[in-house]
Amino acid sequence: MLSKKNSSADNQQERLETCGWIVGFVDGEGSFLINIFKSPRAKMGWQVFPEFNVSQTKKDISLLRQVKKFFGCGHIYIHRTRIKKEKKWDILYKYCVRARKDLKGKIIPFFEKHPSRSVIKRRDFERFVKVIDLIEKREHLSIFGMRKIAKIVKKMRHRKPFNLLSPSKFLISSETIRRAEYSKSSTRKI
Amino acid sequence: MLSKKNSSADNQQERLETCGWIVGFVDGEGSFLINIFKSPRAKMGWQVFPEFNVSQTKKDISLLRQVKKFFGCGHIYIHRTRIKKEKKWDILYKYCVRARKDLKGKIIPFFEKHPSRSVIKRRDFERFVKVIDLIEKREHLSIFGMRKIAKIVKKMRHRKPFNLLSPSKFLISSETIRRAEYSKSSTRKI
Repeated sequence: MLSKKNSSADNQQERLETCGWIVGFVDGEGSFLINIFKSPRAKMGWQVFPEFNVSQTKKDISLLRQVKKFFGCGHIYIHRTRIKKEKKWDILYKYCVRARKDLKGKIIPFFEKHPSRSVIKRRDFERFVKVIDLIEKREHLSIFGMRKIAKIVKKMRHRKPFNLLSPSKFLISSETIRRAEYSKSSTRKI
Repeated sequence: MLSKKNSSADNQQERLETCGWIVGFVDGEGSFLINIFKSPRAKMGWQVFPEFNVSQTKKDISLLRQVKKFFGCGHIYIHRTRIKKEKKWDILYKYCVRARKDLKGKIIPFFEKHPSRSVIKRRDFERFVKVIDLIEKREHLSIFGMRKIAKIVKKMRHRKPFNLLSPSKFLISSETIRRAEYSKSSTRKI
């Protein structure tokens, strides 16, 4: 019985250290980001694309596998960036969670219970949660919802989306302005 | 009494999560490195310089302060690198522990008790400890000790020293070879 108790205490201890490790590793290498990009298939012509990711070089890809195993969701991708000036490829590995059910069911509850120790990352996480809530309420399907989302995303500081300027591009695009005018509402209301 | 017990359990829980957080953050952003560089003041003409560091951009300098507070030693430095091609400065903040008494008394015991979850980083840490032991035994004051150290350092994969090639430079320098020959020992003995 005692050994069972000890083993359970050890497991609990291990679990706590692992939770701390995940937060620390994500504080160093992780991002909560919202990509906004043009998509002819999307109703608004633009798509919102939330993503939780953790990057690492090839040497430590095993760490990403540990994060993936911990959350039990997501995928590991190879991410190549051509460095033109140095004529070489910069290779990174990324653990990504993009499925909304996993973000809502696994990633968000974990970081709500075990918050980041970085004030900036905590604020970004709150914005990330807010945008996902707006998507859940299908607000991204209206011009006003999309503008609300783009304005939140613009404030995120840790984001490393496909295109850093995409929220601004969306906000100032002639199509966005035309649609907003078409729906006969002033921008001040947003 | 119960609340005291609870509070003690909470502290223990907090401590475990914090230890996990430190390991995770260091797995992402930290290095155990050994710098080897020329120094006219050193007996051998080269100096060995162990350092534990954790890097971060300015946005999250608060995280480095938390690491510093946790270990109760070390300093935070600003680290500027001129990117010539882009004509700008790359600014990083670094928490560094260089004092041997702190490395031996605080950093090493912590990571022995709470090892990295990266196999590569664990191996580098073992090499780091080995080099510090050799320095403690004053082996860095002989040509054979210094060659032993340089060979260990060459194997370290996570190192980001002032000069990546410094262990090799030391090993192939004419002064090193001359000294080794002078002491009438074959290199095979090392």
